[in-house]
Amino acid sequence: MLGFTLQETDPSGGRAGVITVRGHSLLTPAFMPVATQATVKALTQPELARLGAPILLGNAYHLYLRPGIGLIRRVGGLAAFMGWNGATLTDSGGYQVFSLAPLIEVSEEGVSFRSHIDGSEHLLTPESAIEIQHAIGADIIMAFDQPVGYPAGRAEAAEATARSDRWAERCLEAHRAGGRAGDELLPSVFGIVQGGFEKDLRAESAARLSRLAFDGYAIGGLSVGEPKEETFDLLAFTAPLLPEERPRYLMGVGTPADIVRAVLHGVDMFDCVLPTRLGRNGSAYTRSGKINLKNARYQDDLSPLDPECDCEVCATHTRAYLRHLYKAGEILAARSLTYHNTHLYLRLMEDIRKAILAGRYREFAEGFLEQRDDNG
Amino acid sequence: MLGFTLQETDPSGGRAGVITVRGHSLLTPAFMPVATQATVKALTQPELARLGAPILLGNAYHLYLRPGIGLIRRVGGLAAFMGWNGATLTDSGGYQVFSLAPLIEVSEEGVSFRSHIDGSEHLLTPESAIEIQHAIGADIIMAFDQPVGYPAGRAEAAEATARSDRWAERCLEAHRAGGRAGDELLPSVFGIVQGGFEKDLRAESAARLSRLAFDGYAIGGLSVGEPKEETFDLLAFTAPLLPEERPRYLMGVGTPADIVRAVLHGVDMFDCVLPTRLGRNGSAYTRSGKINLKNARYQDDLSPLDPECDCEVCATHTRAYLRHLYKAGEILAARSLTYHNTHLYLRLMEDIRKAILAGRYREFAEGFLEQRDDNG
Repeated sequence: MLGFTLQETDPSGGRAGVITVRGHSLLTPAFMPVATQATVKALTQPELARLGAPILLGNAYHLYLRPGIGLIRRVGGLAAFMGWNGATLTDSGGYQVFSLAPLIEVSEEGVSFRSHIDGSEHLLTPESAIEIQHAIGADIIMAFDQPVGYPAGRAEAAEATARSDRWAERCLEAHRAGGRAGDELLPSVFGIVQGGFEKDLRAESAARLSRLAFDGYAIGGLSVGEPKEETFDLLAFTAPLLPEERPRYLMGVGTPADIVRAVLHGVDMFDCVLPTRLGRNGSAYTRSGKINLKNARYQDDLSPLDPECDCEVCATHTRAYLRHLYKAGEILAARSLTYHNTHLYLRLMEDIRKAILAGRYREFAEGFLEQRDDNG
Repeated sequence: MLGFTLQETDPSGGRAGVITVRGHSLLTPAFMPVATQATVKALTQPELARLGAPILLGNAYHLYLRPGIGLIRRVGGLAAFMGWNGATLTDSGGYQVFSLAPLIEVSEEGVSFRSHIDGSEHLLTPESAIEIQHAIGADIIMAFDQPVGYPAGRAEAAEATARSDRWAERCLEAHRAGGRAGDELLPSVFGIVQGGFEKDLRAESAARLSRLAFDGYAIGGLSVGEPKEETFDLLAFTAPLLPEERPRYLMGVGTPADIVRAVLHGVDMFDCVLPTRLGRNGSAYTRSGKINLKNARYQDDLSPLDPECDCEVCATHTRAYLRHLYKAGEILAARSLTYHNTHLYLRLMEDIRKAILAGRYREFAEGFLEQRDDNG
């Protein structure tokens, strides 16, 4: 079972805590690098350990389709499969099945779909999504839900949210049935609040899920294309409706600035593909905003990616060299930018935690947001 | 200037020595990982240092076209540009201009061609190839030659070889003109023996170049598509014609087995894209031959790439995991396989050297070649 100790709640709303799960201790607020297919794209597991990643996020939809859960179970679970000594979390695949798979059919039972890899037919239900995640063996698993896109009609949002909440209950039952009494190896399970962009639906979903004994609560369906102010308006509305004593996980968010803002609303956990995806696309976050090495202005720029950064890449390479690697299609460009971006995210989480523990998080957040350009 | 001390010549013909160049000491026989575009594909410079790479090989043709020699000169040369503390060598671009560039026109003056990147027009001459390499600033540079393909007519081979030898003389003159008397920063320069697949042409080329005061001698134009036995027949014929007291560099060769065989003919230096290229294509060398992870037999194989290997990848990952990464198109597959392959090549060179110094190289080579399958 998942332990969560709130060490400090800052006057700003920021929370610092410790999650303990199956022998792992995770300091919060935590950022979870995304290892969709059992690898954080372009990084090694020893690098992630060196960077201080507390937990990696795999994806049940992807891993179920490839390499398949049989192999992962046989080697002792996702962490063993990857050679990773830290904690792991799997997303249930709810989001992926709706965004990636062709020929989806949704019923009360679950979602039938075709694989985006080979077209094979599959059915995911709340029960099978939990069973798959038990086989993959992450420390924290997620309920199987039907996300709501943006924009969405109210009726559609209401239907998907009510169904997600019913599925959440089935997930919890399947989760308990999958474990044995007193089974310490049973992972922890989080519910996911949906509700689209309707506050009353968000409130209903939060209330329904709060009555169920999830180990933590995620806020899903944000940062799916809506204007940023709407994201934060809904986050500010939804977060306080969740049980205070359980971790709050804002799924798929976001830029460094998004994370700094979301912490003000008491969010404890984050994941996002931005540091890795942008890294592969030639972009780097710096302490003063985002730079894109595709821009010709960096052609002769002999300064490091981020003059304020102490990572190995910034200690070794110039923007001009990294731009050359990117233009030449070299893997070292993706490696270097991903490493730097992930370092920056993980250092940011440390700084956020320190500021909360020191009771000066609002000052930190305001200072941070002021010095950024509007690139995030 | 380049120093070369022959420490031991084994009864088999294998030579162990030390090259000293601009403050670097390189133990021979040496393998030079290929950093065509100022990066060894998929590896970092700190990894290459950790793996014990003594020297990296860049390519003047590629670097001249992108990022351009102005930038590299401004930062202090190739090693500084890459953030590499070891030695560097550049190939002149002779081979690349003939194999990559469209619309080539060869005259006694040099080669006019269009860039394979943007179609722009350029002229490379022996003089400009040396000037470009001086600007790139590697520790060892190569003469500009016109390679002969396989198969080639005798007249064509004779013409290209005679021209290459005349160009070699012009290269040496341009090299001296580019330096100042007593200039310790002047790089060392190697001549390249051509001659196609005609022994008398090889003998003429070796004799002509040996009369010129090159710091070392390369054997070019082998391993360009000819049967393996022809490669080694010509190598066995050509190598003894080169000055004994200067290093011998067999360009672009080869598999681990090729290297073990070539050392028997007194070769001191090697470069090859195989460990990196095969790594990106899902193949790994092992102590008993080559394996290709595309093969379905590795799907559930929980053994390391090479059970006899002590590299980080073999200590951490299974073939099943690496195959999954390769199938999923993940960068970590290329990284891991390239790292392992490069580790294997560099350990092999250490083993070769030890065997020569112990006077038991023939035994080593025979044992090595016996236990390999015919995959190299």
